Amino acid sequence: MPLSYKAPLRDIRFLTNEVFNYPEHYKTLKCGENADPETVDMMLESFADYCSNVLMPLYQSGDDEGCHFDKGVVTTPKGFKEAYDMFVEAGYQAIPFPEEFGGLNMPMSVNLIKSEMMGTANWAFAMYPGLSVGCMNTIMQYGTPEQKATYMPALVEGRWSGTMCLTEPQCGTDLGQVKTKAIPQEDGTYKISGTKIFISAGEHDLTENIVHIVLARLPDAPEGTKGISLFIVPKFLVTENGDIGERNPVNCGSIEHKMGIKASATAVLNFDNATGYLIGEPNKGLKAMFTFMNTARLGTGVEGLAHMELAFQNSLPYAKERRSMRTLSGTKEPNQVADAIIHHADVARMLLTQKAFSEGARSMIYHASRYADKMFEAAMLGDDAEFHKWDDKLGFYTPILKGFLTELSIECAKHGMQIYGGHGYIKEWGMEQIARDARISTLYEGTTGVQALDLLGRKVLIQSKGKVLLDYTANIMKWCSEYALDKGMRKFVWELTKYCAEWNTLTTRIMLTARKDREIVSAASDDYLMYSGYVIMGYHWARMAAVAYDKLKNGGSETKEFYEAKIKTAEFYFEKLLPRASGHSESMLAPSELMAMDLDSFNFLD
Amino acid sequence: MPLSYKAPLRDIRFLTNEVFNYPEHYKTLKCGENADPETVDMMLESFADYCSNVLMPLYQSGDDEGCHFDKGVVTTPKGFKEAYDMFVEAGYQAIPFPEEFGGLNMPMSVNLIKSEMMGTANWAFAMYPGLSVGCMNTIMQYGTPEQKATYMPALVEGRWSGTMCLTEPQCGTDLGQVKTKAIPQEDGTYKISGTKIFISAGEHDLTENIVHIVLARLPDAPEGTKGISLFIVPKFLVTENGDIGERNPVNCGSIEHKMGIKASATAVLNFDNATGYLIGEPNKGLKAMFTFMNTARLGTGVEGLAHMELAFQNSLPYAKERRSMRTLSGTKEPNQVADAIIHHADVARMLLTQKAFSEGARSMIYHASRYADKMFEAAMLGDDAEFHKWDDKLGFYTPILKGFLTELSIECAKHGMQIYGGHGYIKEWGMEQIARDARISTLYEGTTGVQALDLLGRKVLIQSKGKVLLDYTANIMKWCSEYALDKGMRKFVWELTKYCAEWNTLTTRIMLTARKDREIVSAASDDYLMYSGYVIMGYHWARMAAVAYDKLKNGGSETKEFYEAKIKTAEFYFEKLLPRASGHSESMLAPSELMAMDLDSFNFLD
Repeated sequence: MPLSYKAPLRDIRFLTNEVFNYPEHYKTLKCGENADPETVDMMLESFADYCSNVLMPLYQSGDDEGCHFDKGVVTTPKGFKEAYDMFVEAGYQAIPFPEEFGGLNMPMSVNLIKSEMMGTANWAFAMYPGLSVGCMNTIMQYGTPEQKATYMPALVEGRWSGTMCLTEPQCGTDLGQVKTKAIPQEDGTYKISGTKIFISAGEHDLTENIVHIVLARLPDAPEGTKGISLFIVPKFLVTENGDIGERNPVNCGSIEHKMGIKASATAVLNFDNATGYLIGEPNKGLKAMFTFMNTARLGTGVEGLAHMELAFQNSLPYAKERRSMRTLSGTKEPNQVADAIIHHADVARMLLTQKAFSEGARSMIYHASRYADKMFEAAMLGDDAEFHKWDDKLGFYTPILKGFLTELSIECAKHGMQIYGGHGYIKEWGMEQIARDARISTLYEGTTGVQALDLLGRKVLIQSKGKVLLDYTANIMKWCSEYALDKGMRKFVWELTKYCAEWNTLTTRIMLTARKDREIVSAASDDYLMYSGYVIMGYHWARMAAVAYDKLKNGGSETKEFYEAKIKTAEFYFEKLLPRASGHSESMLAPSELMAMDLDSFNFLD
Repeated sequence: MPLSYKAPLRDIRFLTNEVFNYPEHYKTLKCGENADPETVDMMLESFADYCSNVLMPLYQSGDDEGCHFDKGVVTTPKGFKEAYDMFVEAGYQAIPFPEEFGGLNMPMSVNLIKSEMMGTANWAFAMYPGLSVGCMNTIMQYGTPEQKATYMPALVEGRWSGTMCLTEPQCGTDLGQVKTKAIPQEDGTYKISGTKIFISAGEHDLTENIVHIVLARLPDAPEGTKGISLFIVPKFLVTENGDIGERNPVNCGSIEHKMGIKASATAVLNFDNATGYLIGEPNKGLKAMFTFMNTARLGTGVEGLAHMELAFQNSLPYAKERRSMRTLSGTKEPNQVADAIIHHADVARMLLTQKAFSEGARSMIYHASRYADKMFEAAMLGDDAEFHKWDDKLGFYTPILKGFLTELSIECAKHGMQIYGGHGYIKEWGMEQIARDARISTLYEGTTGVQALDLLGRKVLIQSKGKVLLDYTANIMKWCSEYALDKGMRKFVWELTKYCAEWNTLTTRIMLTARKDREIVSAASDDYLMYSGYVIMGYHWARMAAVAYDKLKNGGSETKEFYEAKIKTAEFYFEKLLPRASGHSESMLAPSELMAMDLDSFNFLD
């Protein structure tokens, strides 16, 4: 039985229409008029079909076959080119981009739902058009009118794709160590030389050109992060009339052999005096990079959701069909040789964990997507002040969405394998592939450790001295207070209020401790990230439960079970998953001195 | 830089000599006289060399190449046959078996240390001789003198290997569903027919014969678990003078494509009227099987330790060499482009987690190994009463060692990948292989869920009505009381005492709840297992710290750092890892009703 995927449209609509009221939100966007509910619905339904019927069948075969490398040429697995052509043909790449470049000018949130579906059906495939989005965002915000005119139409169409070239062998997170050089030429172009690694979609056979956005140093650049500039380096130079011209000397030296996402080509790129074009201001490249880091990390949060959902959708039918033993509370299926394993409470626990995490993750992402809409629209319109306002708003959520949700996705994939028992370890069943594929998400776009430090160090402590958290929790408490006496809701809101109070106390204590012990911020960061994630997801489950209670009271009865399941899952989350926050709060303030082991004392092997 | 392994002999001696006093314990064993410290030391040192220099270099190449299958013939990866021949040549398989069959008659605990080293260097390789041990145990305890004489000498030598054939396509855990048939023949033999899957070492090219122990049903057998018998089914029948005879029709239909341990052949075996010999009593096969389940599960606990240690040993040098950013508390390596990542508290946290878990795991296993010594010696001597006494003692530990330690090994392997960042996902660095290989350990020999239910349901509640726990925690409390006023130790022992009290309360509450709600036992089991594991490991860290304090006070100063590191790691464990128990205790008693979701309400995709 191959893996399958069906877009959870009912859950998606629950969030967009019933919880977060996207139609109202879209009225605050200029591009919102293109996103009336019917249009969006039709688009998502057609895209859902494409994901289930075109991308999903290539998921396991793509992993089996992997990408091929031969003398600099990369070939994607069988079926990928045809699937990508259909994607281009349908105009799916164009959703969030301006009409002047052939885009549909719809909100970024619509595109994120598209990414979710595409990524759930086939994350390795989704990376090819996904990387283009980062490239286009950069060109839109920092490119000259000429650069936009040269690159955007073919990128928006999907005829070309893009990359982001940051990492080098000696550095990933610490981009101040970047060595790639850019030598100015008399004609205003630059000659780019250096080696970039881990370049997703860096070389492949899906598009006729690849537009690399490259971090490099000018000859007179200051050391470290303040001397990095951004360059556009196309695989093929573009002629004046927009056609494919001369081959640029940026060559793929090899592709990586990875644990998973094997159908996604991860290239080593050698730039050997390749022609590049400066984009944005000299030496301000890293800042420009970081302004789009929030969307890239939000995108990786979507990957977390994708793997959770895929693991859940494929664990459920197996748990209903596989029969083993009788349950402790008695025989559930007397006509069968044994009870389906879903009847065992411990198996149901794993399934409900997958369910609670994936639906909770979706809620967290769809909430943050509204900020992404605002930020993205400002970027497209070139409104810097507005862009930074929303980028800051989103900034608090992104390390949590990226760091926390990807960690949970690894857990959900693990539950999938556990539910399948020994079969979970066997390739043909597909569950181990989900686990392998999901595993990248806590590593790239900044490891979980990097997210944790970004959240606690930068976003909470340095940038706001705790105020961002105070504001956020004050909002939750205000919301909770409205349900303090509500019979159904009060069990959630009192618990949440307790956590919000504790969350602030913990933050204050870390802030005070950090005055003398700076390293406590690093020592506490992982616990802080996970604690924050569990509490925020609790808030989201409470909000979903509130809507469900409301619908049960005031709505029709035809989907009663849908809303009851939401409430029951919220209860499961609060009783079985949220308590994990306690473990994190207890260990969070352990002194950093505990981690300052003498380097020679870590082990004694000699 | 390929992965490497060096046996942690200093840590091993710390446990065997300083914490658990194996030399004294060996005096209580008949076979102990063969295990004087010098002999054991020499053997372990020579075996350590073999592991580092022969097995470890085959670890990554074995994964790359995997096993080959061609028309029923399985070929192991390059170098495996030569390495196995060296293993046989050195007589390593013979350690714990009786001298009359060519064994060295040494305690099982010595063999378990051997398994630990071999498994850390190359788990996939270790499985071939490892599976033989289960087979030999069964023959020693249940075989007739003739069966022992026929099979034991070549198995002890390692010239032949063995398997355990339990799982069938429709059942793994629920062996009552076994369908394989055994038809009695006039000559007293049986004709065995059926399909067994997931048979580790079921077919390979390392030995000249393979002795399968097979679960099958006699024609008149009662349904379910009470109708299962055990049979010896050799790949080649054995002639009267002990030579290889006719090929028995037990054929390998295929080998599985697995996530990891790819160098270990996992066979589908088709028994097609193969000749088998009943071993033990008819219809009592499952009980016989279960008596050795404890050692098999202890062995999988050793696998947990192996993967933790391998991940730790290979994370550490990378963390010392890879440089990224400056630490929050200031520059640590001014002459370097950036600080080594080990200086970042969050990275040190991951390394110390690996260290605390692997050294804690080793302590837990070496403690339980003493019971295994007693149990195994009784089995070899055919003393059933003594066997069951020690089997029962060991029975409380095995689900914890198997379930808890393997879960931690997955975490340790994960930290290894995180420490390597993006490189952790790339095959050549090896960390992702450790993660893939470790992943099997929570699935086979009973999933973590099966262990959890075995611990809480069978061992704690049904078999002892909580008394086993009361006894165990009373011992810990007594030990703690001796250190209640000790300046160094009191921080550990008061914390432990608190947990022991809570552990009993939780057990009682589950017991009371279960009177009305049987399913609570399943619902609580995973939390109970993990809680128990964390507390027991805390006890072991406290014990190691007590020895370290004592040695610092009374011992020489030349290894001061070794003991100081033990105390520091114990502190890290108590402050940073043990608090996780709180999350488990908080969610443990969530009503099982929460997990009783209507089957159609898990999702709404239509």
